[in-house]
Order: sequence, then C-alpha cells, then structure tokens
Amino acid sequence: MKGFASDNNAGVHPAIFKAMEEANKNHVVGYGDDPFTEKAIKIIKTEFGEDTEVFFVFNGTGANVLGLSSVTQSWNSIICADTAHIEEDECGAPEKFTGCKLLPVESVRGKITPESIRHHLKGFDFEHHSQPAVISISQVTEMGTVYKPEEIIALADLAHKNNMFLHMDGARIANAAVALNLPFKAFTKDCGVDILSFGGTKNGMMMGESVLFFNPLLAKNTKYLRKQSMQLYSKMRFVGAQFEAYFENDLWKKSASHANKMAKLLETEIKKIPEIKLTQEVEANGVFAVIPRKIIKPLQEKFFFYMWDDIKSEVRWMTSFDTTEQEIFEFVALIKELLNTHY
Amino acid sequence: MKGFASDNNAGVHPAIFKAMEEANKNHVVGYGDDPFTEKAIKIIKTEFGEDTEVFFVFNGTGANVLGLSSVTQSWNSIICADTAHIEEDECGAPEKFTGCKLLPVESVRGKITPESIRHHLKGFDFEHHSQPAVISISQVTEMGTVYKPEEIIALADLAHKNNMFLHMDGARIANAAVALNLPFKAFTKDCGVDILSFGGTKNGMMMGESVLFFNPLLAKNTKYLRKQSMQLYSKMRFVGAQFEAYFENDLWKKSASHANKMAKLLETEIKKIPEIKLTQEVEANGVFAVIPRKIIKPLQEKFFFYMWDDIKSEVRWMTSFDTTEQEIFEFVALIKELLNTHY
Amino acid sequence: MKGFASDNNAGVHPAIFKAMEEANKNHVVGYGDDPFTEKAIKIIKTEFGEDTEVFFVFNGTGANVLGLSSVTQSWNSIICADTAHIEEDECGAPEKFTGCKLLPVESVRGKITPESIRHHLKGFDFEHHSQPAVISISQVTEMGTVYKPEEIIALADLAHKNNMFLHMDGARIANAAVALNLPFKAFTKDCGVDILSFGGTKNGMMMGESVLFFNPLLAKNTKYLRKQSMQLYSKMRFVGAQFEAYFENDLWKKSASHANKMAKLLETEIKKIPEIKLTQEVEANGVFAVIPRKIIKPLQEKFFFYMWDDIKSEVRWMTSFDTTEQEIFEFVALIKELLNTHY
Amino acid sequence: MKGFASDNNAGVHPAIFKAMEEANKNHVVGYGDDPFTEKAIKIIKTEFGEDTEVFFVFNGTGANVLGLSSVTQSWNSIICADTAHIEEDECGAPEKFTGCKLLPVESVRGKITPESIRHHLKGFDFEHHSQPAVISISQVTEMGTVYKPEEIIALADLAHKNNMFLHMDGARIANAAVALNLPFKAFTKDCGVDILSFGGTKNGMMMGESVLFFNPLLAKNTKYLRKQSMQLYSKMRFVGAQFEAYFENDLWKKSASHANKMAKLLETEIKKIPEIKLTQEVEANGVFAVIPRKIIKPLQEKFFFYMWDDIKSEVRWMTSFDTTEQEIFEFVALIKELLNTHY
Repeated sequence: MKGFASDNNAGVHPAIFKAMEEANKNHVVGYGDDPFTEKAIKIIKTEFGEDTEVFFVFNGTGANVLGLSSVTQSWNSIICADTAHIEEDECGAPEKFTGCKLLPVESVRGKITPESIRHHLKGFDFEHHSQPAVISISQVTEMGTVYKPEEIIALADLAHKNNMFLHMDGARIANAAVALNLPFKAFTKDCGVDILSFGGTKNGMMMGESVLFFNPLLAKNTKYLRKQSMQLYSKMRFVGAQFEAYFENDLWKKSASHANKMAKLLETEIKKIPEIKLTQEVEANGVFAVIPRKIIKPLQEKFFFYMWDDIKSEVRWMTSFDTTEQEIFEFVALIKELLNTHY
Repeated sequence: MKGFASDNNAGVHPAIFKAMEEANKNHVVGYGDDPFTEKAIKIIKTEFGEDTEVFFVFNGTGANVLGLSSVTQSWNSIICADTAHIEEDECGAPEKFTGCKLLPVESVRGKITPESIRHHLKGFDFEHHSQPAVISISQVTEMGTVYKPEEIIALADLAHKNNMFLHMDGARIANAAVALNLPFKAFTKDCGVDILSFGGTKNGMMMGESVLFFNPLLAKNTKYLRKQSMQLYSKMRFVGAQFEAYFENDLWKKSASHANKMAKLLETEIKKIPEIKLTQEVEANGVFAVIPRKIIKPLQEKFFFYMWDDIKSEVRWMTSFDTTEQEIFEFVALIKELLNTHY
Repeated sequence: MKGFASDNNAGVHPAIFKAMEEANKNHVVGYGDDPFTEKAIKIIKTEFGEDTEVFFVFNGTGANVLGLSSVTQSWNSIICADTAHIEEDECGAPEKFTGCKLLPVESVRGKITPESIRHHLKGFDFEHHSQPAVISISQVTEMGTVYKPEEIIALADLAHKNNMFLHMDGARIANAAVALNLPFKAFTKDCGVDILSFGGTKNGMMMGESVLFFNPLLAKNTKYLRKQSMQLYSKMRFVGAQFEAYFENDLWKKSASHANKMAKLLETEIKKIPEIKLTQEVEANGVFAVIPRKIIKPLQEKFFFYMWDDIKSEVRWMTSFDTTEQEIFEFVALIKELLNTHY
Repeated sequence: MKGFASDNNAGVHPAIFKAMEEANKNHVVGYGDDPFTEKAIKIIKTEFGEDTEVFFVFNGTGANVLGLSSVTQSWNSIICADTAHIEEDECGAPEKFTGCKLLPVESVRGKITPESIRHHLKGFDFEHHSQPAVISISQVTEMGTVYKPEEIIALADLAHKNNMFLHMDGARIANAAVALNLPFKAFTKDCGVDILSFGGTKNGMMMGESVLFFNPLLAKNTKYLRKQSMQLYSKMRFVGAQFEAYFENDLWKKSASHANKMAKLLETEIKKIPEIKLTQEVEANGVFAVIPRKIIKPLQEKFFFYMWDDIKSEVRWMTSFDTTEQEIFEFVALIKELLNTHY
C-alpha cells in the first residue's frame, strides 16, 4: 500500500540501491576512511566549495544535533520556528545533547523573520541569560513552504551581526532547490548559511544524511561529537556510495522534481473539490488541507497519511520520488466518492 | 547606598544573623545530620504537613533545578511563563541539568492559565515529541503579581489530569502569603502544588532556599540529585539555623508584610506623578513603571535599580524587609525634582 | 584489498543484501511500524522469549548507550572492564548521554570477575557516592575471549544481590554463541543478563544492531530514549529485513562459525612461526600477537590491520564471514617472507 | 560534642563571622558587583598574580566542576587519583555536568605520578577515544599527604607537553601551604597548575570556595558556566567578606598551622599506643590509623569520626582550626582506656 504519509515511507531509489550493491565488494577501512566516502565528500565539496567540511550521519535528528552541538556551548540558546523539527519532533534531543535552550518563535507558514525573532536577541554578555548563538530554519519548512534567498540573507545578516550562526535543517533541501530552481549553494552558503543539515533520506536514499560546515573552523571538534553522539557509522561506505549515486546525473533533482510535480498535481485536483480547503500554498512536496472529518478514517484505510492538526481537521499529504499520477488520481477519486457517500 | 534594584540587594535580617551566630558553636555533623537542620525541617513539616520532604539548597536556581530534575526525565518538557525565572534568568541551567525542553507560554501579567498552555498538552506517548511532565509557575510572579488559590487549583487539576506535576517557584512566596493573607500551605499543597521551591533569601536570609515535595515518592532520589547538582552544603547547620529563626515569631511574615507595605506606599506616591505610568498592579513587593527616559540615569545614581524593558523605558523597583518610609519619600521627591529639571 | 583490520571492514552478506532489496518495494509506515520490523522482532522473541523487548538502533555505541540509559539515572555508576568498548572506544558517549560514572576494572584476558569488581560495590545509599547500578561485560570480549555461562551467572548473581543489572555488549555475540556451541538465550537471559546489545553488523549485516531487555519493565521509557539518542531510524524496515535474513537458515551461525574457523586456522599457522607470540587464546574471531616490529609496515601494505598495543608491538587480526583460507595462507606466507627478509 | 570526623564539622572562625556581620549593612548590588567581592578578588590577585581570574562559588564540588567544565568539552577525559574527591565523593557531578570521562589511576598515599598516568596519555586525535584534557590532583590529598613542588612540576610538565591542563583540588590548600612552608603561589601557579579550586570552608569559613584560573583565556566562559551550574550567589558579599578576613593578618595560616599541629600531636600520642597502627604519614591535618575494631563504637560515642576502610578497620581523624590540645589528650586517654577495657 502506498500513501501520502511521509516521503520517508517510500523506499530507496533503484539507482541508489544499485550503487550500494556495487560498493558491497571487498573490504574497506571502516568509519569513513574508504574510497566511497572520500568520493562522495569530494562531490559535495565540488557542489558547495572546497572549504566545506562534510560529516555523514545516520538520520536527520542526528544531523541537526551534530551541527548545532558543534557551534554551541550548553549556556547558549537556539532560536527556531515553533513548528521546527528540532522543537517539535526530536523528543528534546537538541536540549539533551547540547544543553542549550531552544527559543521557539511563532512562525507564519512555517517561516520566521528578523522581526519575529528580534525580541530574543537580548541579554548578550549577561550571565543570567542563555546566550543566543544560533538561528535555525528549515528548508523546505515543516509547512511545505520554501524560504526565498532574500529571506535567508536577512536572517543570516541578523545572525552574523549578533555573532550568531545560521543553521538550516535541509531534510527536504532537494525539494527546495527544485522549487527555487537554484543550485544548493545559491540558497545556502551564498546566502550566509553557516551549518547545513543536508538530507537525502526523504528523497530516495536509505539513510543518507550529512552535516555541512561552510567555515572549517566550526567543525574542528565535530569528529569527536559525531562519535559521542552515536552517529559514526562503521560501514560508512554504504552512505558514501548513496551520496555518489544521488549526485550522479542529477538523480536528486529528478527525484525531487517529480515529487514536487506530484504535489502540484494533487493541489490542482484538490482545488477542484469545494469541500476541501488547502491551508498552505504548495511550494514543494507537501500538501496541507482541512478536510471533512468524516472521510478521514475511510480515506486512510486506502491511502495512509497523518493528521496534522486534529482540532482543525487538518491533514498533511506528502509526495515522494515514486508517487505516480495514477495514485494521485485514484486518491482524489476516492476523496470525491467518500464525500458523496458521507454527505 | 540603598535602592530598589532587588530584594536580594538587602542584607540579612538581624534576627537571622543572630541565629547563625548561635549555631556557630561546637562541632556538628556535616551535610544536614545536625540538630539545626533537623529542627528547621520539623518546623517546615509542621507548616506543610508531616509527609512533606524538605531539602535545603544554596540558591533559587538550585532549588528550581533540583525540584524539576526530581520529577522529570530528559525526554520530558516543562511548561512555564515566558517571563519565568527558569526560562529567562537561569542561563539554561534547567535544560542543562534536566535535559528537558522548556515550553514558554505567553503570559499575562506574569501568569499562565489552563487556556494559555493547553496547546502544549499533546503528543503524549508519541516518542517523537518531548513528553509534557510539569507545569511551573512563580508565586509571586516575575511581574509582581500573585496567583489566587483558584488559579492555582485550575492549573494543578489540569496537570494532574494529564499525569503531570505542578511546580511552584516560590522565591518570593512570603510576599505572596502576605498578599493573599493565607498560610503557606493554603495556596500550595492544598491547591495541588506538588513541588515547591520555598525561598527565603529575598526576604532577609543569607542563603536560605529549599525544595519541598508534598508527595514523598517524588523525592526518593532527590538526595543524590542534590549532591550531583552541587547543592549539598557541608555546614548545613547555617541554613537550618536561618530557617528556624525565619519561622520564629513569624519573622517571615513581618518582613514580607513590611516589604509589601513599602511597595504599596511607593505605588501610592508614584500614582500622584502624571509623567509616570504604572504597568502592573502592585500586589506584592515589586513596582513596575514606565518613566521618562531622561531621568533614569540621574535617578539610578542615587537609588540603584534595573531597567526591566529598555525599549518601553520600563523599570522595576523592588522593596525589601529593610526598606524605610523615608527612602520611599526621598526617592519620590528626587523623581519629582528630576522631572522638573529635565523637562 | 582484504585484510584483518576488523570484522566491520567486511561488507554485507549477499543473503542479507538480497533481503533488503526485497524489502525495497512499496511504501511502509516509518519508524518501525512496518511488517519487516514486526517480523524481525517476532523472530528475536522466539529466540529469547516472548517477554523480551526489542529495539533496533543504528550502531553498537548506540545500542550500548540506549541499553545503559534505560536502566540508570545520572547519579549511578557502571562497572566494566578497563578494555571495554564503552570505556575505551566510544569517546565518552555513555558518560555524556547517561551522566553516569564508569568504573573501569582491571581485566584479565578482557574479562572481569566478582572478585575484581567487589571493591566498587560500596557506598550504597550514601549520597556522596555514585550509586553502582550496572555491571557491563562484553561477549566476545575485546581480547577475543568468551565468557563461560558460569562466569556470567556469577556476575549476574552478584549484580542482582546488590539490586544492580547485568548488561552485555554483544557486538560479537554470534561468534560467542558459536564458540560456546550454545543458543543465544542459554548464555544471556538464562544466565541472568538483563540488557543485551545484540549486534549483527560485525557478522555480515549493513547496520544491524539492537537492544534487548529481558524484563519489559526496564524498557518502559526506552522508546523515548531511542528517539532522543538519535537512534530511531525512519526507514526501519531495512534493519528489520536484515535481521529476518540473519536468522533465516541460521545465517548468523554459518557466518560466525566460518569467521571463528578462519581465526583458528590463522592461530594454527601462526603458532608455527617462532618469531611470533600469540598473546591471547583464540576463542572466537580475533587473534592477538606480538610480532617483530620491522615487519608490521610492509605487512600492512598488503593486508591492512591495526596495532593493538604499540609499546608491546602487539597487533590484532580479526577474521570475518568472508575471510578465505587462501587469504590466511597468503598472509602467513607473506609474514614468513618478511621475517626472512628483514632479519 | 567535638570530634575528629571532618574539618567541616567545625564552625566558623570568629574573625570571619565578624567580617560577615560587618558586611551586613546597607544594600549592595548582587551577584558579585559589590565592594566586598571586589576587595577579596583584589587580595587573591595580589597573592597569585594580577592575571588570575577568580570566581567564588558555594562549595568544593561546585568549585571542582566549574573549574573542570571551563577547560573541557564533553568528549574529553580527566585523569585523577582513584581516591580523588571528584572520583569518589561527588556523586558523579563531574561526569554529569561536563560529560567527560574520569580516568581513575591507582594512587600511592593519595598521589599520582607521571609514571602512573602515562598509560592514559593515548588516543590523541583518535575520535573513538575520549581525548585526555586534564590531570587533576588534590592538595592536600585525600590521604592527608602533600605533593612537593617538584612532584607538581613533573605532572604539570607532562600535562602541558600533551596540550593538557593541570587542575588542583585545593579544598585543604591552606594545610598544604603550612606543611610545605610556602606561599600559595609557589606550589600552584609557579609549578604549572592551571586551574585551582581554592577552598576555605574546611579551614574556618562558612562557605568560602573559589576557582582560580592562572590563564585568563581559560576563564572566558566561566561566568556563564557558574550561573548554569547553580553556583552564582546573589548575596555574594558574604563570601567576599569572608575571604577578606581569611587573608587579613594571615588568619588562614594561623588556622591551618594550628590544625596541622594538632594532627602532629595526635600522631605523636597515637604512636605511643602499640595496638594502633598509623597507615599514612601525617603531613597535614589528617591522621589515618588501623585500630582494634572493638573500640570503634564506644570511641565514636564520645568523639565522632568516620570509618575510612571498614574491611581494614582503618579510621580517619581530622583536626581543625578549633581543635584543642585538651581534646587530643582526652581522646587518646579514652582510646587507652577502651583498649584496656576491651582486651
């Protein structure tokens, strides 16, 4: 059964699987000193610049925590959207591992702005107050929206003026790149992002996550933190091989383009149904909608998805690299059928 | 130079000092197995009930962190006002030591309500989400206001319905007791408070803070946590002796009554000055006011106090057990003089 | 290039790879609510008993830390061998995540005994002292030796008499099972082990690690700790599928038997070389030897392996599921050649 | 009842109490911005050099943890004696707060040497291994012995050669200064100590502990760590005033000299009793002895003291600034009487 629950409910893209299979020959040194990892890092450096430091990890929470812990001390604070994955969905891993205070800010469509966070830029040098050190944003946001380069620049400037860093949680960064029609570097490093969680698992990898530092000084202790945060993989070649395949022939772009396109198609079809109200503009691969409560259960029986906000009867539908047009049409058809049946 | 900066800028009440001096005889066993500590604990148990567990600590942050860490695990969250001491003024000690996530809630006049926190009561049993475990309130609040018993009961009920605890930061609890004209127990344990930081330092002690648990089961590991949080005092008799004196002849009540009365006097006098606008009702020993920016510096040169909100030109004036009527009148006279001079 | 550096320098067993490929169809729910994970857990429960709680994680350090953190508080201590992985090779992850003190004990051939740890069983109830909570042993040990059931029972009894738990780091547990010629359960749960890190990565899996609790009460908070320790895998089906294949047709046993047999062969051949001194009895898949310093570099150029103790010129050679007899013979031949050349 | 349990069972020296009383006038700014704290810091800087950074804290565990956390990251290790206070008596506070691994080393008479710790100076740059960062020694040691300057220099040199720091737990540093007949600076900063817990509580203060950094760069974040570790005292003037009095007219020296002299007297008298065997040379204010088990209970009923090693029937007797010759003679007389009675 397919569905629209999450892009991580999809499997692994066949090309990535094949690359792992090819990497499964002979012995190689563990923990990253292997040719697959080296090659993957080289590709990423080509993409983002030679002075980029790259660390592979197991999952997105690991990537976020490793990136944040590399640039903070326990008496720091981290400013983020109230909807941010690090605030809502990581069971407090950032606080536990970094010791930092997270300062959630009311977001609009998943985004924060210099204005919305300015009240937290206070108490610098005052030892009673957690010292603001990082602004963290998600790209794509948790609401399916995409920060524009100028929005990122504004936050980066504000961060840097206050001797802070800008962190980007790029669990769905490929979908953002496609949405913006920009290379990765153009809306990350070039906009002033300092630390990037660069994810691939939600776009067809098996477990492909990484942390990128655009200033090598920020990463000087990261190798210890990666081990201590239980994110150092012995058979790292199997992540390296995935990333290599991910960049080959722009596989990442094809997969993300497809997912975004499918979300647009779903949006288009849903807009035709008057009983359903889209709550966010569809900019990447997520569709948010308020739907009649009565059709949720029967709809989920055929196509699995999650409630987003139970009180509002809002649901989230995610598309992925392997979503098909047919699935979209079948899904929409079922919605219509259920609406007719239940009213 | 006296001032209105904070009630902890005052010294130690002479009666308390004398009690410490009397305790300074002979040898006694360290770390709390002494007759002074025992007697003080007995007095507190008489006040709050025999099944109260009492732990003396060094300071207010220590009390809050020890209380909270006794009833949480690192994957829990703690809901509090955005103005709470644990959120704003403890440099992240609660996050660092407990590992928990703090969930600040927009407060009105320093208070939170069941309505204002309800959106955080979610994600129970869902392992991606920090599990809500504690609601924490300050009595007196950081805005000088006082929770009424029924407000506390409402929060306690909500907490308990969700298998959570209600923690009260009572750094100024004596001022609240006087304001409410109630014994301590009536607006803490009797209202459903589970853990209380019971403070005395701001009301004339030298370093008199304690954590009270109204259910002994909650405190079964607290002795280890107190040592590990660096809050176990070798010469504890000097805290025990203070608490004994604090309760003798209702010294706490006299001191807090006086401080509150002085704040009321200051409020009354300030209300007569049209250029100054009080921003909070005066319920305990804190007075908050927006004053003309130009008089702040010269006023601070004679009477020290802190800015509360620089942008709004809001200041905070605290009275203490040793504030005199004469100081109030001199202070108000100086304000008037400065207002005339500067405009 | 193959070598004897570590059993994690080997790749993935083809049968396991094939199982992952078969799992790579359709969508399944993430984070473990999928049929592959369910089936794998069922198989493990069949092996260890229905009341076993099973948690899949990414790597061995993650397994150890998750298991230990589930049964400790920060004021506890954990007793282990001075050679233990948790003491020597995890960059302090156990201390960082649990807050506990590790108490390393001088080990003999990688093992600890009731006698060797008894001096640490003190200070119970004394709040100044970290409270001993866990004895942790490795099976196979880091020195390639294997605890006999009676040795495990003795440690478990001692632990339980002191209200402590026995943890086993089973990163190479399959090699131990083969060495002992016993089913897993017979030398773990049946001997009193409470928490088991059950590993598969070093025996032909891609990333197959798990934590087993033989008393479900110990695991009641583990799901939160797994998420918070960044060990919860979104596409968990790919771990589940591996474990399923690992148990099918006793694949684990065939792989481990082969590795152990190759180590024995290496031992036999090495014993014929008078210039080389084996430092440990070969009981599983590790061979430890003091070799002439001058041959190390040239030998490593053809067959990679690590120094174990530079001062003693001691090396460690690990065999794996894919080591061949021919490699052993070529390796030994090269050693002989180098010895002739260099002396 | 007096006794020989611990130097912290004594009270506060009258001169120190008087200084606190004199400090108890008017209001002063809290948290250390007061003239008493300023003056005390000035005195300490005169003693140790102008480039010394001084932080007052509540207790010895707080001092050790603050000092260690200022110079470590969670992936570091700290080498210390197996008898060290940080290893044995702080309930794991160092591990909990710093995240570091403690590496206890077998000590002789409470001391460690370059030889005894050298096996831990390994794994530098190797991310699997906790990175050694600090050597920590106690002066006076927990066994009542005193490091000679050349012994300290040897450890400091070894530390610095490995880019590590030397920390000294000086809970009884005054007794060491008197024993060595040297100014504080001569056997701390001048010997290469980098961070010093400079304690006064055990020598007649009420709660006088501090952390000294001899390189200001090491302390650049300490103010945040002090607040976060719950060691920032609001009414800090009462610590400042104590330290001022402590240095005035060499009060510290008189008190420590007396305590040491009383220990010597006790040693001399005990040596005359053949049934008792001293286990450590008496170099400061601690006397360790193996005594007939049967006299312990009745002896403790009159003079309280602690068992040091129950198995060996070894006890510890501490003298303090207020121990009298008469008490020593009465104590020894009682021992003799009990020995006659019980045998």
